[in-house]
Amino acid sequence: MRSFGSDNHSGIHPQILEAIAAANTDHVFAYGEDPFTTRITEKFRELFGPQANAYLVFNGTGANVLALRALTHSYNAIICARTAHINVDECGAPEYQTGCKLLSVDTPDGKLTPELVATQLHGFGFQHHSQPGVVSISQPTELGTLYTVEEIRALADQAHQYGLYLHVDGARFGNAVAALGVSPRAMITDTGVDALSFGGTKNGMMLGEAVILLRPELSKNAPYERKQLMQLASKMRFVAAQFDAYLKDDLWLRLAAHSNAAAAYMAERLAEIPEVQLTQKVEVNGIFALLPRKAAEKLREDYFFYDWDEERGEVRWMCSFDTTHEDIDGFIEALRKALKA
Amino acid sequence: MRSFGSDNHSGIHPQILEAIAAANTDHVFAYGEDPFTTRITEKFRELFGPQANAYLVFNGTGANVLALRALTHSYNAIICARTAHINVDECGAPEYQTGCKLLSVDTPDGKLTPELVATQLHGFGFQHHSQPGVVSISQPTELGTLYTVEEIRALADQAHQYGLYLHVDGARFGNAVAALGVSPRAMITDTGVDALSFGGTKNGMMLGEAVILLRPELSKNAPYERKQLMQLASKMRFVAAQFDAYLKDDLWLRLAAHSNAAAAYMAERLAEIPEVQLTQKVEVNGIFALLPRKAAEKLREDYFFYDWDEERGEVRWMCSFDTTHEDIDGFIEALRKALKA
Amino acid sequence: MRSFGSDNHSGIHPQILEAIAAANTDHVFAYGEDPFTTRITEKFRELFGPQANAYLVFNGTGANVLALRALTHSYNAIICARTAHINVDECGAPEYQTGCKLLSVDTPDGKLTPELVATQLHGFGFQHHSQPGVVSISQPTELGTLYTVEEIRALADQAHQYGLYLHVDGARFGNAVAALGVSPRAMITDTGVDALSFGGTKNGMMLGEAVILLRPELSKNAPYERKQLMQLASKMRFVAAQFDAYLKDDLWLRLAAHSNAAAAYMAERLAEIPEVQLTQKVEVNGIFALLPRKAAEKLREDYFFYDWDEERGEVRWMCSFDTTHEDIDGFIEALRKALKA
Amino acid sequence: MRSFGSDNHSGIHPQILEAIAAANTDHVFAYGEDPFTTRITEKFRELFGPQANAYLVFNGTGANVLALRALTHSYNAIICARTAHINVDECGAPEYQTGCKLLSVDTPDGKLTPELVATQLHGFGFQHHSQPGVVSISQPTELGTLYTVEEIRALADQAHQYGLYLHVDGARFGNAVAALGVSPRAMITDTGVDALSFGGTKNGMMLGEAVILLRPELSKNAPYERKQLMQLASKMRFVAAQFDAYLKDDLWLRLAAHSNAAAAYMAERLAEIPEVQLTQKVEVNGIFALLPRKAAEKLREDYFFYDWDEERGEVRWMCSFDTTHEDIDGFIEALRKALKA
Repeated sequence: MRSFGSDNHSGIHPQILEAIAAANTDHVFAYGEDPFTTRITEKFRELFGPQANAYLVFNGTGANVLALRALTHSYNAIICARTAHINVDECGAPEYQTGCKLLSVDTPDGKLTPELVATQLHGFGFQHHSQPGVVSISQPTELGTLYTVEEIRALADQAHQYGLYLHVDGARFGNAVAALGVSPRAMITDTGVDALSFGGTKNGMMLGEAVILLRPELSKNAPYERKQLMQLASKMRFVAAQFDAYLKDDLWLRLAAHSNAAAAYMAERLAEIPEVQLTQKVEVNGIFALLPRKAAEKLREDYFFYDWDEERGEVRWMCSFDTTHEDIDGFIEALRKALKA
Repeated sequence: MRSFGSDNHSGIHPQILEAIAAANTDHVFAYGEDPFTTRITEKFRELFGPQANAYLVFNGTGANVLALRALTHSYNAIICARTAHINVDECGAPEYQTGCKLLSVDTPDGKLTPELVATQLHGFGFQHHSQPGVVSISQPTELGTLYTVEEIRALADQAHQYGLYLHVDGARFGNAVAALGVSPRAMITDTGVDALSFGGTKNGMMLGEAVILLRPELSKNAPYERKQLMQLASKMRFVAAQFDAYLKDDLWLRLAAHSNAAAAYMAERLAEIPEVQLTQKVEVNGIFALLPRKAAEKLREDYFFYDWDEERGEVRWMCSFDTTHEDIDGFIEALRKALKA
Repeated sequence: MRSFGSDNHSGIHPQILEAIAAANTDHVFAYGEDPFTTRITEKFRELFGPQANAYLVFNGTGANVLALRALTHSYNAIICARTAHINVDECGAPEYQTGCKLLSVDTPDGKLTPELVATQLHGFGFQHHSQPGVVSISQPTELGTLYTVEEIRALADQAHQYGLYLHVDGARFGNAVAALGVSPRAMITDTGVDALSFGGTKNGMMLGEAVILLRPELSKNAPYERKQLMQLASKMRFVAAQFDAYLKDDLWLRLAAHSNAAAAYMAERLAEIPEVQLTQKVEVNGIFALLPRKAAEKLREDYFFYDWDEERGEVRWMCSFDTTHEDIDGFIEALRKALKA
Repeated sequence: MRSFGSDNHSGIHPQILEAIAAANTDHVFAYGEDPFTTRITEKFRELFGPQANAYLVFNGTGANVLALRALTHSYNAIICARTAHINVDECGAPEYQTGCKLLSVDTPDGKLTPELVATQLHGFGFQHHSQPGVVSISQPTELGTLYTVEEIRALADQAHQYGLYLHVDGARFGNAVAALGVSPRAMITDTGVDALSFGGTKNGMMLGEAVILLRPELSKNAPYERKQLMQLASKMRFVAAQFDAYLKDDLWLRLAAHSNAAAAYMAERLAEIPEVQLTQKVEVNGIFALLPRKAAEKLREDYFFYDWDEERGEVRWMCSFDTTHEDIDGFIEALRKALKA
């Protein structure tokens, strides 16, 4: 199967699998007190600055929840785009695990703006209202769009001005860094982001994400909360070793650049097909498009993909670190056939 | 490093690592809708009976919490041995994630008995009291001891008679099955156990546990709760494939038998040393012993291991699926030297 | 002070205060095992039918949370109007106490419709999505509008068709019953409502609300959950006695009819003032109006009231069970002066 | 009925009922922004010192939970006596509402000591263990015994030395103050207590407790947490007014002295009866006694009371602010008859 359904449908990059195998020698301490974890923690500090603390976790929801726990009290509200993963794809884990209210905002492109955030900034000090505590954005967004560095800084400045924190869900963070050509530090640390969910799984890892807390005072509770949130791996070395290979020689950026380029090529090929209309800019590895319902149905005989907005006939196609031009050409051919049928 | 500190200090069994590699071809659906997960779910049904549902999760705490969630309302109490992993090693995750009270009971050997459980069976229908809802035992226990099949049945019968469920924390379940020579079905399904945490990580897997719910009506909420508890792997195939190799040709039982035998050999060698006194029966892969404090200190220059009861001078030594006679001989030698020093 | 700020600004109706005093003789059992609670529970059965169970609690948020707990699992979503009290005025207690996600929907008048609810009815069986579990409406709404019996029945039918429950937040339930002239049973039981928060505090009680569960199977957990939610009064007789007086000879309906009539009179007087524009129908005891910002500011020197939509210049005025025509005439006079100033 | 079952079986002291009636004039702001609440907050500052913040709540469980929330993170452990109300009489609300683990300790008399607390002070910094965060004692205890000022200070000192807080459950605080003849400030503030649940209900109020936070930095979250914990009364003036009367001219201490004296008289009368053996010192208003099972059964035909330890035949008798010598004489007579029967 070759899938455009999700970047989770691909497997493990060979170098990452090798790193797991290479780490599989001898005994080491468990729960992160191993040399692999020590090294990767240091690497994350190199990426984000000396004040950054990294906490490895199992999956994206775990990363988002641990990050949000570091930033909230249970009576806070978390402001996010209505399309945010934390709002629609985590089965209410953020509410359940933090106790907070999510204030979701409609956006045309998955991106919050200071203007949109401002609509939720009220009720401060009013004991009946969930107190706005965090702005959470996804970079890239779930709609495959990107924030510029300036846009992130503007959101961070606004958040801090009102006493809120800024969280970035970077489940596909590599795709953002590769696309913008901006260093992680410039994009995150220097703009004032307070916590980042740094993804690995969707970009070639078997499993593993990192929570990066950018202010030392936010880390006080994290080790205990990670355990209580059931996100502390016993044989942590195998998560750490994956990240080691992932970051080594910018493998993560090369993989992300590849899936970004695949989506760009796909968009180019789609431009040849007038019945298909893109609904979002293709800035990273996802494509959102309107296509005739019957063609979608037909195409699904060959390729699985998700409806994004069933009513509008909008679908989502994702490219992966291992998507090839042949994959895309095959898809385009099937699409053409489906449209003709 | 060769460690007797924990069976988490060992790595991945080669056949399990190969299974990960073998599963790393092509695209497959995520979140468990892949053929690997389908197959392993079926295998668990073969092990435990057709009414059993298996839910793969990341780690032991996740398995215990998901199992307990399936069996409880937030106003329930969970009865367990004071030494239970859920009571002392999960940073309060059971309380936090279920809302329940843990009623922990002193035991000489980590084992609950109907008599001990009976001390906690009161307050039914009294709205001020947490309502006893679950008896949770560990098989083998955290003290390396075992319940017989009859003992489990007696606890299940008592639990059901009072309207409670019986949960088994089987983080080292393979060691119990290997030691007792009883089938999983006979030990769990036929005795009336309601939910089992089936461990993999401590016995040669990289990571992965399974929650086995033995009654179909207990499974209604499990898929959503697994997600909300952040225990749903996206690239699930790599957890499922590990379990596939783990169960294939009884690899799990052979690995467990190996670590059990290693501990038996170690106990045999320790019997030669009068200064060391075992405090528990060696029924699986753990050894609990009193040894002179100074010797312990000296020995730690070479080998890491945990204090079990610091005050008494009791320590714990664990054998692993890859512990060799050479490892043990080396340890015994170091121990002798430490005692002389 | 005479306030139009909230129906919580008034005190206790004399007959209710007398009932507290009358109950203050002798010793009785605590926690609801007293004759007062027995009697009121029976009275609620007379009002809502023999299958109804009533649980007395302290306040409105407690009532809503206990009702929602009876209807949900933590992975459910609760569909409500954006203006719902549970969404904006309970500091996130519903999320914190149930773990559920609130799906709030924009409405012109505070009322959900089957069409509006339908926009949220998706993702059933998809483990990543909070599963729609409850539709929660307020009767009357926070905007002073009313559902007809037919509208409630339509929402209940839709909810049940999709496997959801219907909850009614009746913090001002008396006002709805008085205004519609329909029996509680016809409005709630016969339409298929599953749980009702029956308010007392805003309509002349000192404090006290009742959760009415309309299906016996929903009551299994309620006594324990009420305690765990800290809503079980020890000297319960004094809450029960208030309700006794409240329901006796339809006092509750007379008080509600009074505050409804006061609002109607106020609306009538406001109609004389062209600078003031009502924004909602006046169906019960609340008035929503646009008035010039400067006039609002001036008027506040004499009368406290809340902004409803600060940006639009919309304010809220509430009438109480003890609001008099003199109060309203005085207010209208002050308003005229403020407009001239 | 005259009951020795609980001090919750009595009603409202007339002066407190009068205060409710007296507060029932005019409109005032809701949710604590009324002059009654302002005044009582100030009175509590006079009692406990200028840095004390008082938060009025509905009931004892609510007070304990709000206090514990102010002192804990969800990964903390709360150390208490096994007999503590938070451990046995709140249906798991502390665990559910804070997420914390309760570490309960056996005591002969309901009192913790530094030695007993020390048995739970381990695992600091170990991420797998719930981190000890609070020592919670009851003053007086649930066994009717008292801590001296020096004993409280020793526990506070120990707690602070290890980075924990000290919480006092003062559901019957008046009885302790009256018995010891020590000012609230000397007993609580000057000993270093961090948070106090100040009871009113069991000593003549209709309902109402206060959480006293002794350090300003602990109050940051309390207003929002009180609301989220559903403990914020809308018509707060009626809780505040009760406390006003309660504290006025030391009414609370006079009532408590009365119930203490009643218990002392009862103990005196019981001393005449050789078949009855007191099991605890009678320091406040509760009596714990062994009496022959048959006599207990017989006595219950006339008087309700709780078994304390059914197995031992230990029962509890409580005196109330309105217990008279006649009540006690009648009880003693019935007891004598029961013993003869």
